[in-house]
Amino acid sequence: MANPLIIETPGRGLVDVTGRVRALVRSCRVDEGVAVVFLHHTSASLLIGENADPDVPVDTVGWFDRLVTDGDRHFTHTAEGPDDMSAHIRSILTGVSLSIPVRGGDLDLGTWQGIFVFEHRYRPHRRRVSVTVIAGVSG
Amino acid sequence: MANPLIIETPGRGLVDVTGRVRALVRSCRVDEGVAVVFLHHTSASLLIGENADPDVPVDTVGWFDRLVTDGDRHFTHTAEGPDDMSAHIRSILTGVSLSIPVRGGDLDLGTWQGIFVFEHRYRPHRRRVSVTVIAGVSG
Amino acid sequence: MANPLIIETPGRGLVDVTGRVRALVRSCRVDEGVAVVFLHHTSASLLIGENADPDVPVDTVGWFDRLVTDGDRHFTHTAEGPDDMSAHIRSILTGVSLSIPVRGGDLDLGTWQGIFVFEHRYRPHRRRVSVTVIAGVSG
Repeated sequence: MANPLIIETPGRGLVDVTGRVRALVRSCRVDEGVAVVFLHHTSASLLIGENADPDVPVDTVGWFDRLVTDGDRHFTHTAEGPDDMSAHIRSILTGVSLSIPVRGGDLDLGTWQGIFVFEHRYRPHRRRVSVTVIAGVSG
Repeated sequence: MANPLIIETPGRGLVDVTGRVRALVRSCRVDEGVAVVFLHHTSASLLIGENADPDVPVDTVGWFDRLVTDGDRHFTHTAEGPDDMSAHIRSILTGVSLSIPVRGGDLDLGTWQGIFVFEHRYRPHRRRVSVTVIAGVSG
Repeated sequence: MANPLIIETPGRGLVDVTGRVRALVRSCRVDEGVAVVFLHHTSASLLIGENADPDVPVDTVGWFDRLVTDGDRHFTHTAEGPDDMSAHIRSILTGVSLSIPVRGGDLDLGTWQGIFVFEHRYRPHRRRVSVTVIAGVSG
């Protein structure tokens, strides 16, 4: 399978990538270990969040919009637009790397956990997300 | 040993799980590598914090209480109570996965570092925390 | 090579450690897998951020200064100075562990991604940062 994944984002918001990451993990045929999911950018990020109610992603994006103000007057890095420096800070707060256990050759997520790319820029982007699977043992 | 660990939380607050994670890591008998600790929920999280002064966890919980307001009037995901959407956001901010080096068959934490489950809901919960150990090399 | 790395920080701010981490990873001669970078302290942290414009680190530090107030009157853990409890919270928000893919024996970072130690204390410190490399497969 293609790795890294190329995730097309529609602009700011959360994109559920659980299914695509899961397919890559299964194709690795590692029974037990860890999958490391990594996003190769500084103005988007990765998170594990609730996968059931579509209101949760909306509330999440809205909360970060209020926490990290676009075009904050304190910012000096402004040449790439009002959503660029705020994007870098949101990326730092949420992170670009996830380590998820693998059991029985599949992602061992909780019932309500999904994997999301968090696009922080206003415009659509193509984001590279790579998946590496490592064999390990559980105690 | 039982894996995942089942952590009984007394409601919102930090629970030190360093000893239980350490025991699981030792039982894996991997001399050098990484332990991946993962919490399988979206309204609690994991963090590495100061393990000495009991005021630090209290101040940490209080700070997050002020940052992410329970029952924020902007939230639309409200059906599960005022502490649910705020819990999801706190879980995203602090994360559900930790990767910690293993040296000499044991967790290689700093002197003041402890591993904590951060329960974000008001009520007590049973939280699943799994530990996977992977062999590796240091440079 | 020496592992852990000893990073001398000049007080609060970001220190780019990408080159030193990269050299350690190369010395491990693992073709494909993951590098786990870990900081063994609770008042500094690690992050992946933009590596090009020096304004970005300045704006990042300034933003965290405004988010987590030094000497916040709500803090009870105050014996070690006004920058200590705020340092613990900033460390929790940004984290002390990074998992980064390795391809072709080298760190597989995005074009604009750098690895930074985020020193949260006012005074200079010596910070231990260890690097562990694990062999793995990509899907």
